[in-house]
Amino acid sequence: MNTDWVDTLKYDAKGLIPAIIQDQVDGQVLMVAWMNRESLLDTLKTGKTHFWSRSKQRYWMKGEESGNVQKVQSVFYDCDSDVLLFKVEQVGGAACHTGHRSCFFMQVTPEGLKDTGTLVFDPATVYKK
Amino acid sequence: MNTDWVDTLKYDAKGLIPAIIQDQVDGQVLMVAWMNRESLLDTLKTGKTHFWSRSKQRYWMKGEESGNVQKVQSVFYDCDSDVLLFKVEQVGGAACHTGHRSCFFMQVTPEGLKDTGTLVFDPATVYKK
Repeated sequence: MNTDWVDTLKYDAKGLIPAIIQDQVDGQVLMVAWMNRESLLDTLKTGKTHFWSRSKQRYWMKGEESGNVQKVQSVFYDCDSDVLLFKVEQVGGAACHTGHRSCFFMQVTPEGLKDTGTLVFDPATVYKK
Repeated sequence: MNTDWVDTLKYDAKGLIPAIIQDQVDGQVLMVAWMNRESLLDTLKTGKTHFWSRSKQRYWMKGEESGNVQKVQSVFYDCDSDVLLFKVEQVGGAACHTGHRSCFFMQVTPEGLKDTGTLVFDPATVYKK
């Protein structure tokens, strides 16, 4: 795959670009994380999502600890070339470290905040550190 | 609606937070733009998406010129409290200033870049300035 387009993207001052991860089957937005040029190239090369952790200042592959990797099905970027969108197969059915299927489980409703997400696993069991 | 949660979000150094706009009906990711506290409150108050333009350094309501406003159906934020997700009814059927239904019309394929989006309107007709 030609990857020249990777150098046409607009990275921020820290060399990062946000990546939306969406479930290929039902379209649910699973998570958003940040990539730099290297983690984007790793993602394209391996077919599994890789990110740059701003809090930990290191590369990580989604699922490296939990096993819940994301297999990339298709790749898009937006009209401003500053946001990536990956449609994936979410292994294990859950993307969030809380055990929820999606990181966007907190819904703002007229009655207040509600956890309307689907809990797939128990984080205490999956992350044993 | 209680809006105390707005002050619990993690805004970046410029006071901004990314907002994913997703079609309520078919789940297509339509666009990503940035909100600050004020444009988020305007969005909640009016039920139509408002953003802060980083390039133009001003507030804008999506559709203020084209008429293609976004009527907010539901509001979510993620486990890190640093990304918003709005499910909307996209008036006019198109979110992108290029006339595409979604800003994510550029797909990376093994054969190269392909515009796989749906063109809904002619920008030259809609934006007359």
